[in-house]
Amino acid sequence: MSLSQADLSTSRPAFSHWIRSSNNVTQQFLAIGGQPDFVSLAGGLPAAELYPVEAIKQASARALDHWGTAALEYGPVEGFPALRAAIAERMSKEHRRRFGIENVLLTTGAMQGLDLIGKVLIDPGDLIVAQFPTYLGALDAWRTRRPSYWKLDWNLDDADFLGALSRAKFVYAVPNYSNPTGALVPQDARGGLLSRVISAKTWLVEDDPYLPLQLTGAAGPSILAADAATRPDGRYDGPVVYLGTLSKSVVPGLRVGWVVAEPKMIQLLALAKQCSDLSGSMFSQAVALEFLDSGVESEIIPRIVACYRERRDALCAGVEAQLGEWFEWEVPPGGMFLWARAKSPAFDTNRLYSFALQEKVAFVPSSVFDPDGALTSAMRLNFTRNVPDRLEEGVRRLRRAVERYLSS
Amino acid sequence: MSLSQADLSTSRPAFSHWIRSSNNVTQQFLAIGGQPDFVSLAGGLPAAELYPVEAIKQASARALDHWGTAALEYGPVEGFPALRAAIAERMSKEHRRRFGIENVLLTTGAMQGLDLIGKVLIDPGDLIVAQFPTYLGALDAWRTRRPSYWKLDWNLDDADFLGALSRAKFVYAVPNYSNPTGALVPQDARGGLLSRVISAKTWLVEDDPYLPLQLTGAAGPSILAADAATRPDGRYDGPVVYLGTLSKSVVPGLRVGWVVAEPKMIQLLALAKQCSDLSGSMFSQAVALEFLDSGVESEIIPRIVACYRERRDALCAGVEAQLGEWFEWEVPPGGMFLWARAKSPAFDTNRLYSFALQEKVAFVPSSVFDPDGALTSAMRLNFTRNVPDRLEEGVRRLRRAVERYLSS
Repeated sequence: MSLSQADLSTSRPAFSHWIRSSNNVTQQFLAIGGQPDFVSLAGGLPAAELYPVEAIKQASARALDHWGTAALEYGPVEGFPALRAAIAERMSKEHRRRFGIENVLLTTGAMQGLDLIGKVLIDPGDLIVAQFPTYLGALDAWRTRRPSYWKLDWNLDDADFLGALSRAKFVYAVPNYSNPTGALVPQDARGGLLSRVISAKTWLVEDDPYLPLQLTGAAGPSILAADAATRPDGRYDGPVVYLGTLSKSVVPGLRVGWVVAEPKMIQLLALAKQCSDLSGSMFSQAVALEFLDSGVESEIIPRIVACYRERRDALCAGVEAQLGEWFEWEVPPGGMFLWARAKSPAFDTNRLYSFALQEKVAFVPSSVFDPDGALTSAMRLNFTRNVPDRLEEGVRRLRRAVERYLSS
Repeated sequence: MSLSQADLSTSRPAFSHWIRSSNNVTQQFLAIGGQPDFVSLAGGLPAAELYPVEAIKQASARALDHWGTAALEYGPVEGFPALRAAIAERMSKEHRRRFGIENVLLTTGAMQGLDLIGKVLIDPGDLIVAQFPTYLGALDAWRTRRPSYWKLDWNLDDADFLGALSRAKFVYAVPNYSNPTGALVPQDARGGLLSRVISAKTWLVEDDPYLPLQLTGAAGPSILAADAATRPDGRYDGPVVYLGTLSKSVVPGLRVGWVVAEPKMIQLLALAKQCSDLSGSMFSQAVALEFLDSGVESEIIPRIVACYRERRDALCAGVEAQLGEWFEWEVPPGGMFLWARAKSPAFDTNRLYSFALQEKVAFVPSSVFDPDGALTSAMRLNFTRNVPDRLEEGVRRLRRAVERYLSS
């Protein structure tokens, strides 16, 4: 998975240090995703056939009719003002309290929010307490700033954890349908984490891309909501730095995400954004605004949820039939992923991966979700991008890969 | 210009080190630009009244008709493939040699290219040799990685310069109509710099946003062109890392820029981009592609050039009439800026700035274009964003500010 020495050798000045600890996993998966004879269970891509192409086309025309040249300018760094206000409004509705526009920064997907948080908070060696296993994109975003990690295992009264928390720049969690595990963090654990974050006077980054993908039951309130409920309406001033996105409920290709946080954090994230790209695409943001105003999102989310539920159930049935002998898992109540853990701790999914490629199926080995790369006995399987028949075919191929791995 | 202590104080963990050496100049200017009673000569914004709104609207519809859901996906990290190919083609035409698609990465404006170069090459303390005075956006982009600077003064045989070059991670230059000075670097100086960069086996970042804005005479070949001419067609493997953008010839709000460089550099910049935002907006990139295919760009560039030439001449005349007693300058042969240097080296444009704000006119003081902040006797005046009458009014206000400054 790592970059080879050949990738890094150069007759010119050396590349920066973080690159040596990097990998090109995501690029590999994107490349595999483009090969039609492969079944890719690797990526985290939505079902493209559900993208509202016609509604986006209409929103584009309206954006230019309505906003004219304002939709084509360098933006305010914080984002297209009317969309920023609409997101403040949306967050207020979802979280049943009022947020101010000064609590909102628009970003190039939630991923840019992670990069900006790294820029604003991390110097080399700084400590992050991160839900474990940890979203690869977050590890990637922060790798460039060379932090260290404490793995959050939800033993919230553990003295070592509390010590780490007191030293940490921030805590990172994906409470709703975590990437990679698909797990929903229970409300009491969320509350416990929040109270310890407040005591330790640190920040809590709550990454919430999967909120729209509630497949079984409800997600329940976010940590931001729980914290905001204890504070007055208006400018939110708590420790939660919340990340949202339209990538899972509308389309990823507009690259519209947002950060909600206390105003000083928003101001410094905006400074970091100015240093990153001057501003996002006002055109994308104006199109997103017009799309949201059309109300189409509330029509398509139920279609997305129904589709993903069917696919999740197909993948679960396939894994049970083909891989149940060697792996265990929980049915994910939402999100995009099934997390399969080998029953034998000696099972090495890094090695399984090369057999899988020979069988023309791809998954994500667990090692990339571990800052140390040491977790090698699990794998992440995506269920949103393939129809049920393809998912079943993928799992059959995985079974053959496992059999070859075991007899190797 | 600096962030105040109040901006940085927090009851939570400290913000990262680079922020303390930062400033909020750009945000201040964007805010002033929105106040109608101000004349802002500060920003670097194009004339919005020339934006091709109708052609972008048509390009948006065609992008979705033609590319469908492919225009709404997470992209390949390197960018929308057909636009990447079109940019390779465009660069091949402009530079009279063939570049491969593997030489091209699409970015969120050229600004993101600067950020990615910083991520790939700079560790704290690393040395950059930069054309001086230096584009504020480049200083901003690299500030987050805490480099040191050698100020390039084009004394190319100076032993200290050659020593700095041998230690530098890269050289940074804006040969065409530099920001902030508007100067065109002569071809012999470009050639001299290139040959020393090749001898020193370092990288040369050539930032070329103003190429379309050739107001008097021609820009002549880029440094990339000069280097590429000595190498075989196909994959370019030289030391130049070239940045281009559609922000000055089409619109900034699509945020479409590109990097042209040798393939390994492109691959690592793509890795850094993946760590920054996963991918740019495929929608913006598809719209840009359809716009370029329409041929409208070649109609609007002459209109932009004619408009900016008239405005440049109006600003120059105004500066001569109102400020000639205290300032000297050259007529910029292209770009967006006039660089006015005080005849008295004791003149302090940082102090002039507060008088200017009282007179409701804004400019950019020279200190922000100096990594050390020590250059305080000049100012950058933009001529693209205001009509001639407003430019003249702005310069009259500046004269009043100078008079108040001198009698203070």
